[in-house]
Amino acid sequence: MIGSVRPQVDGGRFAAKATVGRDVVVRADVFVDGHDRVGATVRWQADGDAAWHEVPMEPLGNDRWRATFTPEAPGLHRFKVTGWVDAFATWHSELVRRLAAGEDLTVELQVGAQLVAAAAKRAGGDDRIRLKDWAARLSDAQPGQHAEIATAEELTGLMARWPDRARNAATSSGSPIWVDRERAASGAWYELFPRSASRERGRHGTLRDVAMHVPALADLGFDVLYLPPIHPIGHTARKGPNNARSSSPGDVGSPWAIGSDEGGHTAVHPDLGTVDDVGALVKELEAHGMELALDVAFQCSPDHPWVAEHPAWFKHRPDGSIRFAENPPKKYEDVYPLDFETDDWRALWEALLGVITFWMDRGVRIFRVDNPHTKPFAFWEWLIDEVHAIDPGVIFLSEAFTRPRVMEHLAKLGFTQSYTYFAWRTDPTELRDYMTELTTPPLAEYMRPNLWPNTPDILTEELQTGGPSSFRARFLLAATLAANYGIYGPAFEHMEDRPREPGSEEYLHSDKYEIRWREPGAAAGMRELIARVNATRHAHPALQQDASLTFHRADNPMLLVYSKRDERSGDVVLVIVNMDHRHAQSGWTDLDMPALGLAWDAPFTVADDLDGRTYAWRGPRNFVRLDPAHAPGHLFHVAIPR
Amino acid sequence: MIGSVRPQVDGGRFAAKATVGRDVVVRADVFVDGHDRVGATVRWQADGDAAWHEVPMEPLGNDRWRATFTPEAPGLHRFKVTGWVDAFATWHSELVRRLAAGEDLTVELQVGAQLVAAAAKRAGGDDRIRLKDWAARLSDAQPGQHAEIATAEELTGLMARWPDRARNAATSSGSPIWVDRERAASGAWYELFPRSASRERGRHGTLRDVAMHVPALADLGFDVLYLPPIHPIGHTARKGPNNARSSSPGDVGSPWAIGSDEGGHTAVHPDLGTVDDVGALVKELEAHGMELALDVAFQCSPDHPWVAEHPAWFKHRPDGSIRFAENPPKKYEDVYPLDFETDDWRALWEALLGVITFWMDRGVRIFRVDNPHTKPFAFWEWLIDEVHAIDPGVIFLSEAFTRPRVMEHLAKLGFTQSYTYFAWRTDPTELRDYMTELTTPPLAEYMRPNLWPNTPDILTEELQTGGPSSFRARFLLAATLAANYGIYGPAFEHMEDRPREPGSEEYLHSDKYEIRWREPGAAAGMRELIARVNATRHAHPALQQDASLTFHRADNPMLLVYSKRDERSGDVVLVIVNMDHRHAQSGWTDLDMPALGLAWDAPFTVADDLDGRTYAWRGPRNFVRLDPAHAPGHLFHVAIPR
Repeated sequence: MIGSVRPQVDGGRFAAKATVGRDVVVRADVFVDGHDRVGATVRWQADGDAAWHEVPMEPLGNDRWRATFTPEAPGLHRFKVTGWVDAFATWHSELVRRLAAGEDLTVELQVGAQLVAAAAKRAGGDDRIRLKDWAARLSDAQPGQHAEIATAEELTGLMARWPDRARNAATSSGSPIWVDRERAASGAWYELFPRSASRERGRHGTLRDVAMHVPALADLGFDVLYLPPIHPIGHTARKGPNNARSSSPGDVGSPWAIGSDEGGHTAVHPDLGTVDDVGALVKELEAHGMELALDVAFQCSPDHPWVAEHPAWFKHRPDGSIRFAENPPKKYEDVYPLDFETDDWRALWEALLGVITFWMDRGVRIFRVDNPHTKPFAFWEWLIDEVHAIDPGVIFLSEAFTRPRVMEHLAKLGFTQSYTYFAWRTDPTELRDYMTELTTPPLAEYMRPNLWPNTPDILTEELQTGGPSSFRARFLLAATLAANYGIYGPAFEHMEDRPREPGSEEYLHSDKYEIRWREPGAAAGMRELIARVNATRHAHPALQQDASLTFHRADNPMLLVYSKRDERSGDVVLVIVNMDHRHAQSGWTDLDMPALGLAWDAPFTVADDLDGRTYAWRGPRNFVRLDPAHAPGHLFHVAIPR
Repeated sequence: MIGSVRPQVDGGRFAAKATVGRDVVVRADVFVDGHDRVGATVRWQADGDAAWHEVPMEPLGNDRWRATFTPEAPGLHRFKVTGWVDAFATWHSELVRRLAAGEDLTVELQVGAQLVAAAAKRAGGDDRIRLKDWAARLSDAQPGQHAEIATAEELTGLMARWPDRARNAATSSGSPIWVDRERAASGAWYELFPRSASRERGRHGTLRDVAMHVPALADLGFDVLYLPPIHPIGHTARKGPNNARSSSPGDVGSPWAIGSDEGGHTAVHPDLGTVDDVGALVKELEAHGMELALDVAFQCSPDHPWVAEHPAWFKHRPDGSIRFAENPPKKYEDVYPLDFETDDWRALWEALLGVITFWMDRGVRIFRVDNPHTKPFAFWEWLIDEVHAIDPGVIFLSEAFTRPRVMEHLAKLGFTQSYTYFAWRTDPTELRDYMTELTTPPLAEYMRPNLWPNTPDILTEELQTGGPSSFRARFLLAATLAANYGIYGPAFEHMEDRPREPGSEEYLHSDKYEIRWREPGAAAGMRELIARVNATRHAHPALQQDASLTFHRADNPMLLVYSKRDERSGDVVLVIVNMDHRHAQSGWTDLDMPALGLAWDAPFTVADDLDGRTYAWRGPRNFVRLDPAHAPGHLFHVAIPR
C-alpha cells in the first residue's frame, strides 16, 4: 500500500510548488500486510518528457519512506511513488535471524536459490552470470559454508540491483509539481511610485528617473523593483490628496484608476514616459542583477477606452449606470470593476491575457496582482496556465488581503507568491505560530509567503506608534523570517509614521494620490541596516529558503529566537529579535541544538552581521541582552570553531 | 469552492465510521472569490436509497461550515456538500450597510426586486404569492419605507427558503460513511477460556459452564463475552504447559492450533460441547443483555481436515514439507499458515467466508480477528464487504499488534474496532498523547480503539511489578478513556502477575496451554471496582463515546485528568487517575472549564462514583489527593448545583 504521499495538494488536484535546482523531498507510507520487506522508488519527469527519472526511496522507520530529486527546468513536473514486496530481502532478513538462532539453513538456502535464479533471468550483462553462479552456490552449499553465504554482501548488492517489482507492486497516481525559477523562491522587493522618483522637488517623476535609482537600489541589495500601475489615469471622479472625493486640476489621481483617452492597460502614462522606457528600465535593472515587477490591476477608470469600446465588459444597474467599485460603505468612484461573468467573457479574458503578454514582450516577467480575490478563481487558473505555457518563468504575486481559505486557494490555483498577515502579527507568540503555519505543510507545499512590513495601503499601528526601533525590528523580521520580503521603500526608509487620520492605516499624503518628495540624505540609518541585512541574505543560503525555519525557546517571551539552516551547505543563521521596541530585554536562550546542526553540548561561535561582534557560546543556554535603542536584534552566523 | 470535507478517509477511498442514532458532524470549507455570500447544505442517503435527505450547514466563521445528520440504520451511507453563491444574501448585507451609511436605496431596491421576482418563480404555494408581493413592494418603495423594507425579516426568511442554487454551485464528490450498530461504539468486553470455566477443580470446562457464568458477568456490567477459539485442537506438535515444545498425553494444547480429525473451524471441541451449545450460550447472553464474540484465527493445526483435503491452500517448501508458522526465531510448530495467494485462492477465500457465515447462522455477530495483519489486506476488504452485505451489524475487532500504518490500514479496510498500544502506554504524557491521537481526526474518523489492560498474550511489566494498585488504575483508565475496553477477565480479577519467565509478557501457567482453576471468592475487591465502573459507564452517555475526550492540566504531572461530555444530554464525567501506583500524589487541577460545559468561574459539584463522596468545587483550580492504597482515582460525575 502507498499512502500519505507528500508533497500533494488536495489529493493531486493542484500542483505543489518547487524550484529549479532545489531538492524536492518526497515522503510516503509504503507498507504491506504481514512481515514482508518492501522496496520503493520515486519516478519523476517534466511534463511532456517521454522518460522517467528514478530515485530509490530510503526507509525512515515506521513504514515511512523518503527520496529527493532536483528538477532542472521550470514548468510542470510529475512524480509517482512505486512500492513492491522485496521477496529476497524478506528471505534474507529471516535467514540472518535463523543463522543467529543456530538453525539448519539447508532448505532455506534452496528457497533463496530459486529467488536468485529468477533474478538472474531479469538481470543483464555480467550480473546475469554472477547471479546464476550465486544460485548454484546457494543450492549446493555445504553446512560449513552457510554462514559465509548468508552474509555475503556481493549477493545482497546484486539482488538489490534486480528487484522483482512484479510482486504486489503499487504505484501512486501522479502528483503534479510546479517548478518555478530561482527568483520565485527568494528575493528582496522594493516598491516605489515613479511619480515621486524625481530628485528635483515638484517635478513629476518619470521612468527615466526610476532608472537612475537602480544602482543605489542594487547597492542596497534589492532583487526586484515593483512599480504600482504606470498607465494613464482617468479624469472622471479623480481622487484628490488623501483620497479626497474631489480633486483640483493639478492633482495626479490614483494610479489604480487605470485608463484615459491616452490609453489603457497597455499604455504608459505620458507624464511617466513611454513603453520603450519600460524596456530600458528592464535592461538597466538586468545590468544590476535586478528585475522589474509591474502591477496588474484588472479594473478601469470611467475614462478607460474599454468602457466605450466594450460596454458589455461592465456591470450595469437597473437605471443603466455602471456600478463603480465599492465595499459598502467604502466607495471607489474612480474605478469600474470588470464583469468577468459577462456573456462576452471570452473576449474580455483574452484581452486581459493580452495585457500580460504585452508587457512580457517588453521583458517583464514578474507581476504583482492587485486584489485577485475579487475576480473569479477560474479566471486566474486559466490566465496563469496560459501565461506559463508561453513562459514558465513568469512570477505572479497575489495581493489578496482577505480570508485565509481564499488566500490559500489563490495560491493553489497557481499564484507564485502571496502577501500575508505578517504586518499585523506583532505579538511574539502570534508571529511564531503564524510563521510556523506558513512554513510547514500543508501550506508550505503550495504557498510562498512574501512578507511586507508596510505597503502603500498598510501603515500599521505598531509603526505609527513604535518609533524608529519598531521600523528596524519589523524590517529585520521580514527580511529574515521569509526568503521573500518587500518594503514600500521610500516611506519605510524615511520611517514615515503619520496616518491620514487617527485609527486609519492609510499614510498621510500618500504617494497614491500625490507626488511626494523626500530629502535624499535623510534615511541613511535605515539604509545602512537594509544594506547589511540584504548582504547577509545574499551571502547565506540558509536565508534563501523557508522550509527549515525553526523557533527556539527563551526564558523571556519578548525575545523571538529562530534559525534557518541550508541542508546542502550546512550554512546556519540564528536570529534573535527583541519584540519590545521600547525597552531593553534580556534572557537565556533554550536552543534546539540539533536544528542548528550542533550536538547538545557543542561549543560554537555566533557572529553578528549587524555589529560585527562575535561571541563564543556553548550548548542551548546562552545569555542575550538587546536594547532597541541600539539594535533590533542579533543576526548571527553560526559556526563551529576549529 | 468546497474543500477540506470531513469526515473523509483518504479522499473518499475508504468509508469513515459512524453509529446508528448518533450525530455525524460534517465540516467543510465553502467559499467563493470576492465578497459574495454563500449558502451550503449537506445531502445524505443510505446506499441504495433513491432520495437524499438534506440539512442546511451553518457557518462557523472563516469560511468553515458545519452540519449534522443522524443515520437511522446500519450500512453504507454517503454525503455530499453543496455550496452556492447566495445573490440575495449578498445584496441584502450590502443594503443594510448602505442603509447604515445613509445612502439612497432607490436603485438598489430595484436590483433586489429582480432577485425576489426570480425567487417567486422558483417558489411554490403561498410563498410564490408572497414573494411576488414583496417584489412589487421593493420596486414601488417610497424613500420613507426604505428602512422598514431593508430590514424586513419576513422577506429574508422567505428568500432563505427559495435560494438560487444554480449560481456558481459546487458539490463535493460523495463521501462514504459506514454506519455501525450501537454496540460497535461502546461496550465492555470480558475474555475467558471455556476450558477453565468449570467450578469443579480439575474438570475440563464446557460451554454450558460458561453459560452458568453469564448472570454474574451481567451483574459485573459486561456487554460482550469473548471466547478464544472453541474448535478441535490438533495433536501434532501440540504445545505443553507454558508453551513447552513437547506435550504429555493429558495436555490440552493451544486453542489456536485449530483442527483435528474431529473437525475444523466450523466444529466445536468435543470437550467443550456442541455447535448447539454455542446457540444456547448466545441465547443466555441475550437474555442478560450481552453478546457473544468468537475468535477468528485463519490458520490450521497440521491435523486440520483442510491439510489433507486442500493441500494447495498451504505453502510448501522445496523439500515438500509445509512451512509452519514462525517469525524467526519464534516458532509455532503446531500451526500451519494458510497460503492466501494460492492459485486456488477463490475456493480458500470462500471457505473462510463460510466459516464466518456458519457462526452467523448460530447467532454470532461479533468476531475478534486474530493477527489480521499477517493475511492480505485485499482478503479482509473482500471478506468484511461480503459479510456486511449479509448483515451490516456484524462487528470485527482487529487484533493487530503491529506497526501503526498497518493497524490504521486494517481499520480503513473495514475492521469495526482495533486493539491498541494502550497496555504499554504507562507514562502519563505518553498515554495522554496517544489517546489524543486515537480520539481526534484523522484516526478517529475510521479507527475505534478497544483498550485492553491485559490479554492472554500481554501481561505488562507494569502489572507484573505494580501490585494491586496498578491493576485498579489500569482498569479505571481502560474503562473510562475509551468507550470500548476489555479484560482477560479471570486473570485480571485475580490480579495474576507472574510471568512465564523474567522479561516475558506471557503468563505463567497461562490458560492458553492448560486448564486453570481459580478460587471463586478470591477476587471480590477487583469485582466490586469493575461493577461500579461498568455501572457508571452504563449510566453516563459521556463514557459511551470517545470524540469528546479532553485532557486537563494539573500542577502534578502524575495526576492524569480527563473528561468526556455528551453533547445531547449535557452529561459530563471527569476522571482523575494517580499514575503513580506506589505513592500518594496530590496537586491542583487546571480545568478547561468550557470543555466541562461550565463558565470559567462556575461553582459545581463532583460526585465520585467510586466512594460515593461529593465535593463542592469552583473554577479551574481544585485540590486533589489520591492514595493508591485506597483508590486508583476519582470517577466524578460533574453537576451544577441548583
